[in-house]
Amino acid sequence: MKRTKIKHALNAETPMNEVLIKGWVRTKRESKDFSFIELNDGSCLMNIQAIIDHTPDILEVLEHVGTGASVAISGQLVESPGKGQKWEVRGQSLEVIGEADQETFPLQKKRHSDEFLRGIAHLRPRTNKYGAIFRLRSELAQAIHKFFADKDFFYIHTPVITGSDCEGAGEMFRVTSLPAGKGDTAENDFFGKPAHLTVSGQLSAEMFALSLGDVYTFGPTFRAENSNTARHAAEFWMVEPEMAFADIYDDMELGEEMIKYLVSHMLDTCASDIELFAQWVDKSLMATLETILESSFERLPYTEAIDILRKTKKKFDFPVEWGIDLQTEHERFLCEEKFKKPVYVYDYPKNIKPFYMRMNDDGKTVAAMDCLVPRIGEIIGGSQREERLDVLISRMDEMHLDKEEYWWYLDSRRFGSAPHAGFGMGFERMLMLVTGVANIRDVMPFPRTPKSLEF
Amino acid sequence: MKRTKIKHALNAETPMNEVLIKGWVRTKRESKDFSFIELNDGSCLMNIQAIIDHTPDILEVLEHVGTGASVAISGQLVESPGKGQKWEVRGQSLEVIGEADQETFPLQKKRHSDEFLRGIAHLRPRTNKYGAIFRLRSELAQAIHKFFADKDFFYIHTPVITGSDCEGAGEMFRVTSLPAGKGDTAENDFFGKPAHLTVSGQLSAEMFALSLGDVYTFGPTFRAENSNTARHAAEFWMVEPEMAFADIYDDMELGEEMIKYLVSHMLDTCASDIELFAQWVDKSLMATLETILESSFERLPYTEAIDILRKTKKKFDFPVEWGIDLQTEHERFLCEEKFKKPVYVYDYPKNIKPFYMRMNDDGKTVAAMDCLVPRIGEIIGGSQREERLDVLISRMDEMHLDKEEYWWYLDSRRFGSAPHAGFGMGFERMLMLVTGVANIRDVMPFPRTPKSLEF
Repeated sequence: MKRTKIKHALNAETPMNEVLIKGWVRTKRESKDFSFIELNDGSCLMNIQAIIDHTPDILEVLEHVGTGASVAISGQLVESPGKGQKWEVRGQSLEVIGEADQETFPLQKKRHSDEFLRGIAHLRPRTNKYGAIFRLRSELAQAIHKFFADKDFFYIHTPVITGSDCEGAGEMFRVTSLPAGKGDTAENDFFGKPAHLTVSGQLSAEMFALSLGDVYTFGPTFRAENSNTARHAAEFWMVEPEMAFADIYDDMELGEEMIKYLVSHMLDTCASDIELFAQWVDKSLMATLETILESSFERLPYTEAIDILRKTKKKFDFPVEWGIDLQTEHERFLCEEKFKKPVYVYDYPKNIKPFYMRMNDDGKTVAAMDCLVPRIGEIIGGSQREERLDVLISRMDEMHLDKEEYWWYLDSRRFGSAPHAGFGMGFERMLMLVTGVANIRDVMPFPRTPKSLEF
Repeated sequence: MKRTKIKHALNAETPMNEVLIKGWVRTKRESKDFSFIELNDGSCLMNIQAIIDHTPDILEVLEHVGTGASVAISGQLVESPGKGQKWEVRGQSLEVIGEADQETFPLQKKRHSDEFLRGIAHLRPRTNKYGAIFRLRSELAQAIHKFFADKDFFYIHTPVITGSDCEGAGEMFRVTSLPAGKGDTAENDFFGKPAHLTVSGQLSAEMFALSLGDVYTFGPTFRAENSNTARHAAEFWMVEPEMAFADIYDDMELGEEMIKYLVSHMLDTCASDIELFAQWVDKSLMATLETILESSFERLPYTEAIDILRKTKKKFDFPVEWGIDLQTEHERFLCEEKFKKPVYVYDYPKNIKPFYMRMNDDGKTVAAMDCLVPRIGEIIGGSQREERLDVLISRMDEMHLDKEEYWWYLDSRRFGSAPHAGFGMGFERMLMLVTGVANIRDVMPFPRTPKSLEF
């Protein structure tokens, strides 16, 4: 008999005379004549309850059924007299597939700290919370693809190993095929030149926007920054749309539309998983998500943002003046206290932004934008790109970039250049937004952070 | 006015009084009183034709309109009297957005060799062939996500940077945050231990199959193999499903279903792009794809495959005997000549397979399977995994693997272990299968191969 996933059994329309459930034991309770087993197979948050009468054979098997064991139970799917579940299994047979030693199995039925669970990241998806996180992660990724496919954006796999330092900012990991400490040189290395892990697929994606129109990337990106914060990881996934014939206002519109679509999609498709987080992780989660759905995102030029920050009575740790990069405290003040909704800050000083952003007519600012959301801070960073070859070249000269290295990038401005714009959204930050989870390590299967490369 | 993508203009139901098209000029033909401009914006294979009457203003602008320039044309969408297109644009205004110098623009209207185009990988998506390849690549990726989402598989982002050598096979790239040639040691490096780029997400995915049930990965994987073939790249994308409570037969079934789904989806959704390849790249493409759809894949134990190969009159470069790994010539003989359809070879000798594959009762073979398809050879490689802790440990000992390193992997067999199985499919090989393109470099945005890291 084929197994039925618990998700499907719990959503059955009618009783079933024969059903085979396989999963992991969450709890077992024995009474005199029968036992209750709560089974979870990861297909959904809910367990299914099985009731099995004690026969000599069953009693023998039950001795091997502990929390965490994998078992197969076949029997009838019948209406459950208990509340909170519609169906339960009247078990006729019980088989232990894999035992779990009760002395050493680390996930006994009690609450574990997130920190403890990080140490057993290979087992934590067997808990309610982390099972839900990774189901939500999967659904959020699907939603991203659906959003862009519906809008006729093409999905581009930009390379992870790169020969160029995309942002001119951010520490990069080096990639080599040579052993450590051997005085290796780039010339005799695999690629014959220095190779690094990309910090962004943008420059590659621009080449595709300028040929296919609307494109996006969705893949892993890397930062070798030695910072141990709750919002940074050395490896994370990023979504980067790039649109031809588009400006910074189109860019902000796309970002707002995308965030609202994702939030709405998750609430529609994953209600029970999200309720778990609203109840146990962040009591304000539903209010935050509703605000995002209902508000029209503020669009605030950087210069006005600085004015607001200077005029408020609130004290900041980092002093505010025109020209600074906004700190998390400033960002959170703007979206959580001042506007109480998502805020785009745009037209930033050119000196704090990379070479490829489009110079504004004031000569002082570039067409950059960041989207700030409550609790997370910056969730999107983007810009209109400099499409004018002469302006781009003079920016690169100012910033002492090697134009030879970027010959192909400059080519795109030589031949049929066009205004274009795009942004990057940290996928994990979006997942933190919709779950209320505060630490990025807790929304990644196996997080990579300084001095941490287990699993 | 908002621009209309050419794909949508060409599919219009009725004429339009006002339409704005933006795109890149493929050709321009001038006659006495008017000019024809063929525009492509990457949204589809087809160009749209615009006809513009010569006025003094237009004539001045037309001087700047060469092949490769980006332009905006607004006017009316009217029925086209020409054949091969339903609609054309009666242009009222013409604006050059970005010129393309006709002396230096490398994509003049003539056929270019694939090799030449590899040298300008940043511009090749502006050709018919490569535009189509990257649209097909995008659609194939979408189809993969759709296939698994419809089957309730969860998408897992397994890490790219890994501390373990997954397959015990294959050269790996090393990742470091230290500069080259400085006698760097792993202890003072970013992660405090040796770090590499993953060759497979499988071991991580297994942890999630053993908690969420059915999962898959889809992401970049890496090989530092110094081989310059048409089928290998240093960085490529792989799809890796992993199913709990499944055996090798379930695994083969899933693979067959997936391949048929993908082929069928691509034929349904991308007919015009695929026809281009059937006409210009591989005349046998449609026949190959139909064979895949219509045949039931052969399932052939390795031992029988060896018998067949030994008995045939065909001469092979590599001699055939029980225990060898099949070479491409053997694989192609089996699927192209002997069975003339896709073939699964399964139950391979344990000595040529990794430690994690499930030992068969004969003690000589493991539950491994490869799916061979015409023209490509191996497109899928998978196995049932060894779920028995004692057997797994003795295999690791035999192969001198460090069990301490794999403590977490072994944990999954200690606590609620279960039969499970999965496979890896090279995404680019699948794309080569549906396009007929013979070189992997020509289906990747920016291919990474030995001594090649441009763009």
